[in-house]
Amino acid sequence: MFEKKMKMAALDKVDINGGFWKEYMELVRCRMLPYQWEALNDRVKDAEPSYGMANFKAAAAGKGEFRGRVFQDSDVYKWLEAVAYCLMWHPDKELEATADGAIDIIAAAQQPDGYLDTYYILTGIEKRFTNVMDNHELYIMGHMTEAAVAYYYSTGKRKLLDAAIRYVDCVDRHFGREEGKLRGYPGHEVAEMALVALYGVTGDERHLNLARYFIDERGQEPLFFKEEREKYHNEYKWKDSYFQDQYYQAGKPVRDQEKAEGHAVRAVYLCTGMAEVASKTEDGELFAACERLWKSIVEKQMYITGSIGSSEYGEAFTFDYDLPNDTLYAETCAAIGLVFFARRMFEITKDGRYIDVMERCLYNGIISGVSLDGQKFFYVNPLEMLPEASKKDFYKRHVDVERQKWFACACCPPNVSRLISSLGGYAFEQSDSEIFVNLYVNGNFRTEIAGCTAEIQTETSYPWDERVSIRVKTEREAEFTVAVRVPDWCGNWTVSVDGGEYTGKLQKGYLYIERKWNGTSVIELTLKMPVRLMAAHPRVRDDVGKTAVMRGPLVYCLEEEDNGAQLQEIYLPEDARFEQTYDPELLNGVVTLKADGLRLTEAEWGEETLYQEYRGQHFDSQKLTFIPYYAWANRSVGEMTVWVHMK
Amino acid sequence: MFEKKMKMAALDKVDINGGFWKEYMELVRCRMLPYQWEALNDRVKDAEPSYGMANFKAAAAGKGEFRGRVFQDSDVYKWLEAVAYCLMWHPDKELEATADGAIDIIAAAQQPDGYLDTYYILTGIEKRFTNVMDNHELYIMGHMTEAAVAYYYSTGKRKLLDAAIRYVDCVDRHFGREEGKLRGYPGHEVAEMALVALYGVTGDERHLNLARYFIDERGQEPLFFKEEREKYHNEYKWKDSYFQDQYYQAGKPVRDQEKAEGHAVRAVYLCTGMAEVASKTEDGELFAACERLWKSIVEKQMYITGSIGSSEYGEAFTFDYDLPNDTLYAETCAAIGLVFFARRMFEITKDGRYIDVMERCLYNGIISGVSLDGQKFFYVNPLEMLPEASKKDFYKRHVDVERQKWFACACCPPNVSRLISSLGGYAFEQSDSEIFVNLYVNGNFRTEIAGCTAEIQTETSYPWDERVSIRVKTEREAEFTVAVRVPDWCGNWTVSVDGGEYTGKLQKGYLYIERKWNGTSVIELTLKMPVRLMAAHPRVRDDVGKTAVMRGPLVYCLEEEDNGAQLQEIYLPEDARFEQTYDPELLNGVVTLKADGLRLTEAEWGEETLYQEYRGQHFDSQKLTFIPYYAWANRSVGEMTVWVHMK
Repeated sequence: MFEKKMKMAALDKVDINGGFWKEYMELVRCRMLPYQWEALNDRVKDAEPSYGMANFKAAAAGKGEFRGRVFQDSDVYKWLEAVAYCLMWHPDKELEATADGAIDIIAAAQQPDGYLDTYYILTGIEKRFTNVMDNHELYIMGHMTEAAVAYYYSTGKRKLLDAAIRYVDCVDRHFGREEGKLRGYPGHEVAEMALVALYGVTGDERHLNLARYFIDERGQEPLFFKEEREKYHNEYKWKDSYFQDQYYQAGKPVRDQEKAEGHAVRAVYLCTGMAEVASKTEDGELFAACERLWKSIVEKQMYITGSIGSSEYGEAFTFDYDLPNDTLYAETCAAIGLVFFARRMFEITKDGRYIDVMERCLYNGIISGVSLDGQKFFYVNPLEMLPEASKKDFYKRHVDVERQKWFACACCPPNVSRLISSLGGYAFEQSDSEIFVNLYVNGNFRTEIAGCTAEIQTETSYPWDERVSIRVKTEREAEFTVAVRVPDWCGNWTVSVDGGEYTGKLQKGYLYIERKWNGTSVIELTLKMPVRLMAAHPRVRDDVGKTAVMRGPLVYCLEEEDNGAQLQEIYLPEDARFEQTYDPELLNGVVTLKADGLRLTEAEWGEETLYQEYRGQHFDSQKLTFIPYYAWANRSVGEMTVWVHMK
Repeated sequence: MFEKKMKMAALDKVDINGGFWKEYMELVRCRMLPYQWEALNDRVKDAEPSYGMANFKAAAAGKGEFRGRVFQDSDVYKWLEAVAYCLMWHPDKELEATADGAIDIIAAAQQPDGYLDTYYILTGIEKRFTNVMDNHELYIMGHMTEAAVAYYYSTGKRKLLDAAIRYVDCVDRHFGREEGKLRGYPGHEVAEMALVALYGVTGDERHLNLARYFIDERGQEPLFFKEEREKYHNEYKWKDSYFQDQYYQAGKPVRDQEKAEGHAVRAVYLCTGMAEVASKTEDGELFAACERLWKSIVEKQMYITGSIGSSEYGEAFTFDYDLPNDTLYAETCAAIGLVFFARRMFEITKDGRYIDVMERCLYNGIISGVSLDGQKFFYVNPLEMLPEASKKDFYKRHVDVERQKWFACACCPPNVSRLISSLGGYAFEQSDSEIFVNLYVNGNFRTEIAGCTAEIQTETSYPWDERVSIRVKTEREAEFTVAVRVPDWCGNWTVSVDGGEYTGKLQKGYLYIERKWNGTSVIELTLKMPVRLMAAHPRVRDDVGKTAVMRGPLVYCLEEEDNGAQLQEIYLPEDARFEQTYDPELLNGVVTLKADGLRLTEAEWGEETLYQEYRGQHFDSQKLTFIPYYAWANRSVGEMTVWVHMK
């Protein structure tokens, strides 16, 4: 019963050909991938060098220095994975040749026993597996495997896949409960989901078993990382933290974890792996842990933008309802990981609330990480920006005022690339008898269902417009279900099928339109998109008395560029009326929201007065302009806020 | 014209004999000093050891290990200074003998050339003066000198004074602009004010000149600390900071400093020294710098409690209007330093606004640092406390949830002792023809003025009650002025002299009552004390939409103990009416303020909902109880807030 009911659409069957996401996909394909390849080869001027390819070349040559962070290999793998996805919907011989060339170098770096982590190959392979906690060898194996599986699906080429299998087998010989093996598991998770994906290709039970072992062994007493630290005198960066080994989600068995804790990216990557293993092994207890952690995240620890990770220290979760808007971490990768987790939970449950969160992340906390030209990136995605604070408040020094060209730790840019390039798979999911329309894109999904070839054609200007037209085409009569998602944000929707009103009930966020399809039918969905003023639970201390403006799936914000500085002085009347305008010239085309707002006057305050007796709140009126949050910081450095005082 | 017009009352002439401050003074004398002596001798169970006396003993014996922080000597000196003050108003042979014993040990530790810093004496005197930036030798000289001057005034004994002069002379031989001397100055200021105090005893121009040199040389290019770092490879802890050498107020000449920057305690100690030197040398430019820095602090960077230092990083100022209530530093010592600075500025200008700030600090941000039993201390004085955040938010880990018994860096407890034990000197100030009543205490001040012996007797229940009765007694007819301060917080006051209405104008915060006094006269002052709702300048982001409740000089707060948790849910109606009750049983006797308040209801929020559409703010009514801020955290660990949402 925990087996996945749905699987994502194969990317070569989905042709997204216009609209919001097509622009991002083309940005990835035409700009980000070429740019990132330059970055991985240290050819971007004035950017932090990556050393990604240089390390592989040195390892292949058997000589040279390792440079960059210990996990640098993974950026190359994430790039390869994104390339694999792009090739599925946009064949490109040149790009494929570049990737093949990279794979040749990678394969040449592999050691005779299958080991492949350039850090230890270049700095002393005899020290490998002595700091599994922090040195990312198993993380790299995971990303290698994810790339290898994707590249195999995309091109049919086995070179990277075979190399990954050899590395996995090498790890399998060293880790496990058997005598003489290390009872370790990844310090940074990702291998768990990767191994299940590999199992999907190989059918080799050892690959699934290794994933299951990693999950079950994690956090068992005696704690492996603790013993490893003691044995090898590894630095324990978290000895002063309250979360201790839970930084790695390794302080107690995953089934005993009640709350999402520790490093946020690791946590959601773990959850994704847990869901995969629970599904493949019909492990109800493990699935219950997934649900518990999901609720802990989205009901207690998630920003309205879908971002997670309230604290820079440990890039971590903190505690329930602790969601500061300015000192947060909210790493782009963490929101991406939450999308991974959401997709698995949906595939197991067919519950639309998981896609609601996925959509929240995609339209807000993830693409906020990328500049509109696809060449600069945020690692941290604040909901409030005061540039002076980033400079002068040490606790906000990690909150960049503008997107950066590259990072010494560059996990986010290629992670965005691999997500966006596989977006078609998130838009459509299917089972033997059901096609789910999860995201509203402009495009076609061709598939075999109920013994027939069918095509779903969607047309929309979502998220700017409320109308989504879904054309269902079959070669001949075939009975199956088209499940159309109605997002949680939409309280007022209509749907018709071939012009007739559809009266089915909403079930867990879906309209199950089941019929004998024949020829072409049209489902017309209208998702009313009024501007919504959102409130946070009163336990969220930082948002009390404030509202966040949303329209459709988009969270909006105020920027200094449009509204002046000192945004904390701005109040939005609770009965504000919004002028909604699509401006094709602005920020690559966005709907702006304008309203009559208020600004606390400074007139009654001298420069010399810091405190005075309260004399009522006095305001000047001010026209406010809200723009979509994801598009902030694309025009100038300045203040920004999502949460606005409400009057 | 910058010469001091006023000087503080000699402590042996002031007999504070009851009321609010008498309790604190007795707490210092009877509890804190004995307790701190135990602490300095490492005899307090379960508290961080001080090693203060142990280091002096080892240095005197010429053998042993130095333990504790590099500036540990200073805690002993601050204790001695406080003892000196206490002995002036409460002779105590036993305490004096204890102090004499400590001084004997200190003197025995002094090196033949006068040098006296146990850290270098015990760890290698050849390394002295190689890290003046961080190793506090000149800071220790300053505190030694302050203690020595106080002990000399108090007891007439010269042993510590002579030792201090020898140390000062030793420093004077090593530092200065002359060939072969180090062009250094204190990394942590205090020597500047101490040297001027010493000059007051010795009349030796070298002592004043050294103070002036320290101030003038500070921050001159080439930067001494930078050169010292390069020469001795001293660690530069602030290399990643935005303030750089301004941490030490040593990045540019003090006359060029426009804003208070860097470590807050150091900054106000420096300002105090600058004011002293400006006064003694009639240096108008230097005084202008003092005024500029004063304004930068109190108009842009001061909490409503008088606390300063917005950031834990560097224990430092950040930027204008940046006054977070929860991540702040707000060190007890910094508010004490601001009182030192205020007193000098008043003494030069006779301007009551300096005493207004002094009073704000004393009644709020300073005594909040001491538990009501005088045995536990806050280093950091937050305006908002969420215990879970102190535990789980790394950025709030420095904000203790309860006062601690002692600290490894224990500057604050003895600093409170020396301030409170000299409080009489802050209450009354005089010139040849004027007596200023600055603080309203219960007590007598006997003095010579206008060639006559006069006595000022004050009686009040301030800060709980609005009436202050001031009896002026003279042996015979004498013409002088009694200047009675009317605090800035008081908008409604009356004053009478011998029953007749006094109609003089308020001048810079004072009523100048000038007459020929003869026999006994009574000045009756009434300072109306309504509850006041205060607002912060709208640029103070964290206080927008909130109010702080004050009555008289006291800032009030809400505690979880009285009002339940989730204090951010509480709203105070702007027209709230307060029930004011003196409760002698509560917190050693306080006036509580009770009002009908509101609490945002959680009823419309499920446990599962983190965000939902705004449906208006819905409240439950709740009786609120405010207590004086200084008394918080004396009953239980829990939430607290000064700034409360306002409706």
